Amino acid sequence: MIDQVLQNLQDTEPQGVQRLCDWLRIASISADPKFAEQCQDAAQWAADRLAEAGLEARVLPTGSAAEPGHPCVLAKTPNADTGRGPHVLFYGHYDVQPPDPLDLWESGPFDPLVKPADDKVPAEHIVARGASDDKGQVAMFLEALRAWMEVGGEPAGGLRMTVLLEGEEESGSENLEKFLKEHEPALKGCDFCLISDTGMISRTRPAITYGVRGLAYTQIRLHGPDKDVHSGFWGGRMPNPLNELTRVLAQMWDEDRRITIDGFYDDLVEATAEERAEWASLNIDVPAMLRNIGLGPEADIGEAGFTSIEREWSRPTAEINGIWGGYTGAGAKTVIPAYATAKVSFRLVADQDPKDIADKFFAWLQGRTPPGCRWELEDMHGGHPSSVDPTSPWLSQARRAMEQATGMDVALIKTGGSIPVAGMLKDSLGLDTVFMGFGLDDDRVHSPNEKFELPCFRMGARSHAVLIDLLREGSA
Amino acid sequence: MIDQVLQNLQDTEPQGVQRLCDWLRIASISADPKFAEQCQDAAQWAADRLAEAGLEARVLPTGSAAEPGHPCVLAKTPNADTGRGPHVLFYGHYDVQPPDPLDLWESGPFDPLVKPADDKVPAEHIVARGASDDKGQVAMFLEALRAWMEVGGEPAGGLRMTVLLEGEEESGSENLEKFLKEHEPALKGCDFCLISDTGMISRTRPAITYGVRGLAYTQIRLHGPDKDVHSGFWGGRMPNPLNELTRVLAQMWDEDRRITIDGFYDDLVEATAEERAEWASLNIDVPAMLRNIGLGPEADIGEAGFTSIEREWSRPTAEINGIWGGYTGAGAKTVIPAYATAKVSFRLVADQDPKDIADKFFAWLQGRTPPGCRWELEDMHGGHPSSVDPTSPWLSQARRAMEQATGMDVALIKTGGSIPVAGMLKDSLGLDTVFMGFGLDDDRVHSPNEKFELPCFRMGARSHAVLIDLLREGSA
Repeated sequence: MIDQVLQNLQDTEPQGVQRLCDWLRIASISADPKFAEQCQDAAQWAADRLAEAGLEARVLPTGSAAEPGHPCVLAKTPNADTGRGPHVLFYGHYDVQPPDPLDLWESGPFDPLVKPADDKVPAEHIVARGASDDKGQVAMFLEALRAWMEVGGEPAGGLRMTVLLEGEEESGSENLEKFLKEHEPALKGCDFCLISDTGMISRTRPAITYGVRGLAYTQIRLHGPDKDVHSGFWGGRMPNPLNELTRVLAQMWDEDRRITIDGFYDDLVEATAEERAEWASLNIDVPAMLRNIGLGPEADIGEAGFTSIEREWSRPTAEINGIWGGYTGAGAKTVIPAYATAKVSFRLVADQDPKDIADKFFAWLQGRTPPGCRWELEDMHGGHPSSVDPTSPWLSQARRAMEQATGMDVALIKTGGSIPVAGMLKDSLGLDTVFMGFGLDDDRVHSPNEKFELPCFRMGARSHAVLIDLLREGSA
Repeated sequence: MIDQVLQNLQDTEPQGVQRLCDWLRIASISADPKFAEQCQDAAQWAADRLAEAGLEARVLPTGSAAEPGHPCVLAKTPNADTGRGPHVLFYGHYDVQPPDPLDLWESGPFDPLVKPADDKVPAEHIVARGASDDKGQVAMFLEALRAWMEVGGEPAGGLRMTVLLEGEEESGSENLEKFLKEHEPALKGCDFCLISDTGMISRTRPAITYGVRGLAYTQIRLHGPDKDVHSGFWGGRMPNPLNELTRVLAQMWDEDRRITIDGFYDDLVEATAEERAEWASLNIDVPAMLRNIGLGPEADIGEAGFTSIEREWSRPTAEINGIWGGYTGAGAKTVIPAYATAKVSFRLVADQDPKDIADKFFAWLQGRTPPGCRWELEDMHGGHPSSVDPTSPWLSQARRAMEQATGMDVALIKTGGSIPVAGMLKDSLGLDTVFMGFGLDDDRVHSPNEKFELPCFRMGARSHAVLIDLLREGSA
C-alpha cells in the first residue's frame, strides 16, 4: 500500500503546499501576548487536520487560570491506548518566532510565497515565518497522515500514534513540563518520540539526530569587602573578588581541558567505538567551520583525546557565558569591587543530571572559597540531555525509512545544542527521541525571509509515510 | 629666632585662619571648565601671598594655546639659584574637587565656616571644600613663610626655596609633566621635594610619608571568534575568550601570591630590616581596618612572607580592576562571545618603571596567547613610585622639625596609594619627596563637609617654620 501512499503524496503535493500556506498565514507568535488568539487558531487548524486524518484531536489549555499559556494539541489514533505493536509519540510545535526586524523581509512574514528556484536558492521554496521551523516540518508529517488515511482509510495506516503539538517552544516551553505531568496517562506507553525540527547535513545528505546535549546554567557571585575599596590602599592586602573569582574559575579545567569538578563525569555514557567511527566517516570539514567564525585550524582545541565533532556530540563542557565586575567604563579607575559575578553553564551528555551537576559545581566552589569571601550561587535553569542508543530499533527503522524515501545515504548525527523538550520527555516519560528533520543550514530559521525548500518538504512527507509503513508491519 | 617665629604664628593664628578662608572662598574646581577664572584667581591669590613673603612669584600658563590648562604658580626666594646650602622644592595644589553632591553639605562648600568642637569633631575646625585638600595644608606652609619674613625680614629665613603650586592635581595633572620639562632650568638644582598633602596616623601621632607606590594601568582584550557564537554548537570545540582570559589571568599569581610575570621583581628595592621593625612598632590595627570594609581577620591575605602593612607599603601588586564579556543581563544566554576584556593594574615600588612593567606584562600575555586568539593591549597610564631612602638627611631633618614643633613622636610611614607628582618629580628631576602632612582620616577629603582641624593647621605651620630653621642652619 505504501506505493499508493507515496503516489498520493506526489499527486497532491500542490494542495499540500497550499495547506501549509494556510497554516503559515496564522501569525502564531508565542512570545507576544497580543497574538494569543492566533496561537489558539493555529492550534485549532492543526487539530482539524489531525481529525481529518482520523485521529481524536483536542486543543487543551496549559498553564493555570491565573496565568494561562498557549494551548497544546493532543491527538491520538483510536487504537493508541488499546492496540498492540509500536506506539509513536510525534512532537512538534505550531508557534513561531517573532518576525522582527520586519524591514529585512522581502515579502510579508505571514503572507507565504511559493517562489521558483533563483540564484540563491536552488529549488522551489516557500518563504514565510515558520516555513521551516516548525510548521513546515510538522506539515510533512500531517501530509503523510492524510495520505495514509485517504489511501488506506485507516488512521496512520493502523499504527498506534499519539501527537503532541506545543505552542510555546519558541518562548521557553514554560508550561510544557506541567502539561506533561497533567497528561501523563495520555502520554505514557509510547515507545519513542519522533520530532521533525532538525536539519540535513546537505541537500543530498539527510540525517537523523539521535542525541542532544543537556544544559545546567548557573550564576555565581563572589562577595569580598562590603563596599568598593581603593586598590592603592587595599591591593595585595585582602581578597580582590575579581582576582579570586578568576583564580577559582581557572581551576575548572586541567591541562588536558578536562573538567575538574568532583564527580562531574560520573554519570556520563561514553560514545562507542562504532559511533566514533561513523562520525569520522562523515568527513565534516571542521577547518571550514572554524573559518566561518574567523578562526584558523589551530583554534581546534578542547578536551584532549577527542575530535572536534566528538567534543560537540559526546563530551560535556564548562563555559563561562558572561563575567563582570569592577570598573568597565572608559579610562582607568583603581577600584577593588565588593563582588564579581559570572554566568557559568555546562553542556551535559547522557546520563548527567542538570541539578546534580549544578550541585556538584557549587560544592566544588564552596571548597575553594577564598578567605573572608562568600558565594551567592544561583541554579538558573537546566535541561536534561537526551540520547538514543545507536543500536535502538526505532533509530534503525527511521533510518531505513528515510533511505527508502529519499534514495540517499542517511547520516546518524548528534548536536551539541540542547532541545529541552527531548530532555523533558526523557526525564518525565522515559522516552528516547529520534529527530528526523529536513531543514537546511541556510533556511534562515529565526531570521528574516525564512524559507523551506519543496524537495525537503517532499522528502520529509515521504519519509514519514514510509516510517509509518515500516512500524505498522510490527503491529498486530 | 625660631622662638619669635613660633610666637608670631601663635599670635597671628586668627588672621592666618581668615586668610585661608579667603582662599577657600574661591571655587577653584579644576575638573569643570566653567571654573577656569576661579582657578586663575586662586593661583593669583597664592602668588600674592608668596610675594608678600619675599619670593619672586609668577602665575604661569600650562598646556598649549589651543588647549590651555590651569596655571601653575612658580615662586623662588631671591637666593634660590645663586645661594649655597639646601634648596627645597615645595609642591602643593590650589585646585579642589567638585563639591557634589551639594545637598549633603551642611554649609556652602565655598562659604568656609570656622566651627567649634562638637560631638563629632573634637577640636575647632574649618569646613569647606579644600579646607584640608590641599589649600589648608598649603596655607600652613604659607603662614610659616609669612612669619619668617615678618620676624626676620628675610624670605624663608634665608633658606633657598622654590615653590610650585599646581592647578590640576584633582583632574589628572595632565599638563604637569610638560610644565616640568619646560621649566626644568627653574626647577633643577633642588635637593628634595616637600609636600603637605598626606595625613597623620592619629591626632596624637604625626607622620611623615616617605614612599608612595607607582602605578601601571592596562586594558587587555582577548579576541577569539569574529562574532558571538552559540555555546551549544561551539562549547568545548574552540577557545572561549572568557574561559581563556580567566585561565591566563589566574596564572599571574603563584601559590604564594607572588606575581609570576617574568622580570617583574627585577628593579624592586626591598624594605630594610630597620624599616620593617619600625612599621611593626606602629602597631597598626589591621583587623580593625578589615572590619571597616566588612571583612574578618582571615581576609588578611596577600604575598606570603609579609605583613599587611609591609604588603601595602613595600610590595608591588597585580589587581584586576574590571572584567567584562559575554552576557551580563538578567537570565540565561548561552553565548560564547567574540572577546573578553579586563582592566589590570600594578602598584609599583621603587625602582619599578610603569612602562617597563606594562611591557613585561604584555610580553607575558603574548607568551600565553591561547591557540587561534589574539590580544589587544593598551598601556593606559602610569606613575612612577617614589621612595626616600630611610637614612636620607632630609627625612631626618623633617622628622626632627615635626618632633620639635609638635612635641610628639613622629612615625615614618609609606602609603600604598600613588601620588603621581612624586613619581613625576623623581622621573623628570631626580627628586625624592618627603610628605609632611597633617590631614586626618576623617577629614572627608573629596566628600561633602570636608574639614580641617585647627590643631592640625597649627602643628603644620609650626613644623614648616622649624624645618626652615633646621635647614637654614646648613646654609652659608
